[in-house]
Amino acid sequence: MTRSITLLGATGSIGASTLDLVRRERDKWRVVALTANCQAAELAALAREFGAEIAVVADERCLAELREALAGSDIEAAGGAAALVEAASRGADLTVSAIVGCAGLAPTMAAIEQGGMIALANKEALVSAGEVMTAAVERHGATLLPTDSEHNAIFQCLQAGRIEDVRAITLTASGGPFRDWSHEQLKAATPAQALKHPNWDMGAKITIDSATMMNKGLEYIEAHRLFPVGLEKIRILVHPQSVIHSMVEYRDGSTLAQLGPSDMRVPIASCLAWPGRMNTPCAPLDLAALGTLSFFAPDEERFPATRLAREAAEAGGAAPAVLSAANEVAVAAFLAGKVEFTRIALLVAETMAQLHCPAPQTLSEVLAVDAEARRVAAGMLEPA
Amino acid sequence: MTRSITLLGATGSIGASTLDLVRRERDKWRVVALTANCQAAELAALAREFGAEIAVVADERCLAELREALAGSDIEAAGGAAALVEAASRGADLTVSAIVGCAGLAPTMAAIEQGGMIALANKEALVSAGEVMTAAVERHGATLLPTDSEHNAIFQCLQAGRIEDVRAITLTASGGPFRDWSHEQLKAATPAQALKHPNWDMGAKITIDSATMMNKGLEYIEAHRLFPVGLEKIRILVHPQSVIHSMVEYRDGSTLAQLGPSDMRVPIASCLAWPGRMNTPCAPLDLAALGTLSFFAPDEERFPATRLAREAAEAGGAAPAVLSAANEVAVAAFLAGKVEFTRIALLVAETMAQLHCPAPQTLSEVLAVDAEARRVAAGMLEPA
Repeated sequence: MTRSITLLGATGSIGASTLDLVRRERDKWRVVALTANCQAAELAALAREFGAEIAVVADERCLAELREALAGSDIEAAGGAAALVEAASRGADLTVSAIVGCAGLAPTMAAIEQGGMIALANKEALVSAGEVMTAAVERHGATLLPTDSEHNAIFQCLQAGRIEDVRAITLTASGGPFRDWSHEQLKAATPAQALKHPNWDMGAKITIDSATMMNKGLEYIEAHRLFPVGLEKIRILVHPQSVIHSMVEYRDGSTLAQLGPSDMRVPIASCLAWPGRMNTPCAPLDLAALGTLSFFAPDEERFPATRLAREAAEAGGAAPAVLSAANEVAVAAFLAGKVEFTRIALLVAETMAQLHCPAPQTLSEVLAVDAEARRVAAGMLEPA
Repeated sequence: MTRSITLLGATGSIGASTLDLVRRERDKWRVVALTANCQAAELAALAREFGAEIAVVADERCLAELREALAGSDIEAAGGAAALVEAASRGADLTVSAIVGCAGLAPTMAAIEQGGMIALANKEALVSAGEVMTAAVERHGATLLPTDSEHNAIFQCLQAGRIEDVRAITLTASGGPFRDWSHEQLKAATPAQALKHPNWDMGAKITIDSATMMNKGLEYIEAHRLFPVGLEKIRILVHPQSVIHSMVEYRDGSTLAQLGPSDMRVPIASCLAWPGRMNTPCAPLDLAALGTLSFFAPDEERFPATRLAREAAEAGGAAPAVLSAANEVAVAAFLAGKVEFTRIALLVAETMAQLHCPAPQTLSEVLAVDAEARRVAAGMLEPA
């Protein structure tokens, strides 16, 4: 039996991992839509390889190139935000939502409205638009399968019990490259130093988020949206080896943990084959070779980002969207050499303190909060 | 809704843990039968407390005392092997099989024949009578819930996938008190030294089995019976802290692990409430306080017991029963100061080499193999 799949964000890292897995079991999949921002040639090649029904570039300026690259095939070509939403609305059995940033919100929402399975890799969907998005999931009977390694781990651990029997959910965090640094050292940390992540090979923004631990803060908010056990039951644990991806403790004292290599194909495979399993080429776990796993309580004095995220989650409404948008502005400023590393969290805190928007009820209200938070955060970067 | 429960072996350690949990949710349970070997007064007190339908002592000589202790109540009193089987045949929703040794085989089989749920703590059932027992489980549609912390962990981890998708099952082992000892040191090890187990408080026989790692060998055979993934997929990993109780790796590279305190109430609670969960008074897992988990490959040169168990499992038929019986004789001889610690495994190996019985087809054939293996092993202890 074949399953149909749409991949929103086919040319990024999640897209590549997903297609690597689909390629290995080519006959089990029918590809509906593949999308990219503007990588027309690459997208066209993938659409041809996988026999996609439609290929879409988000940036309309790249449509001509896409059309040309698809000439002679019977694959549709389309461009622009509305085309993205139309492609996502075609209703695949599984939609992988892997567009980075707020651009992914509308097509993800369109896929949710079809009521199928959504493998969710877009963080903004749950952080900024969390309440709007989960309400839509409920309304349309869609199934969210988290692809983040941590949330996918929790999702797997929850197969061994019922959510009402959960006593605690523990998100593990590598602690980033500055785990042992003093506050003074952190003040002087450079972008080059922050970009050296110990375990995962990721983009620049998310690697800086890992160094500030804002990445874990955002995941904390996501976990709160995905797994409604109550904020007080969600914890963060520093685990430098990142072998245990996350854990769920039940009320009888049993803790289920999911472990694996730092390879996104593992959680993606679990979404693609869910509720079954599929082969991946990932090496088996060898704990004897690893020797030791270590664990530390997080230090929110040196790394206040997780505290800010918890405050945003507690406040609810617009606060998580403000946190996420302000953080993007602050990280960009740090990468551009405009602010110190330790100023990232301060900028986020200041933006949150200054901006009090009403809770967004629709996607466009979410986008308005996002824009306003970026404006306020950017304003703080200007000389007074 | 109440569930009915029978507890075979109510006065032992598993029995006490089970009743501690039942006591906490007294209104959810109806107690059918409680049994003991000969602790008549203690058994009668428990039968009165839990309002049991019948109390049985395995040793008929203790029946008079039991009758006296139950005088004036409407609780039936019975004694002897046949009464044990009769009590187990009364068909409770859940039967906890916690009688130690071969005495537990017949009543466990009687419970299996009722087709209910069997929480299995009796090791001999699966090691010595494994093929006979699992065939009966299949035939009568019974459900085996393993209570051993390792097998219970595997059972929980298997909730996240299908057995045909399992790539490996890893049983963790504390490594025992002699984990770092040289062969020369092992030769001189005393019973008092062997009885100091680092993590679990258990009986003498099982603590010595932990020191030789035969305990893990027996668990390996049990795992092979409970989880038919093939012997080559079952592994042993030394993990001195015993926090991870066991693991299951799926073919996509996801490993599920179950972690918890060294408290038998955790796996027993998981059986009692299965497929739900119930509260236990066990402390939450605090990995940050633990700090480190470590892992080592087992050393079968110094600890050959797991190799012997693998050979017995590969041979099948009578071999596991011979291994288990010879080991009991050898451990008793070590505890009595008659043989060196390192001779335990040698005696088992020699008995296995000497004795080649046909595969037992019935419980009485299993018991005959057991008796013959004890005779042969004991003979090896005599001066030539």
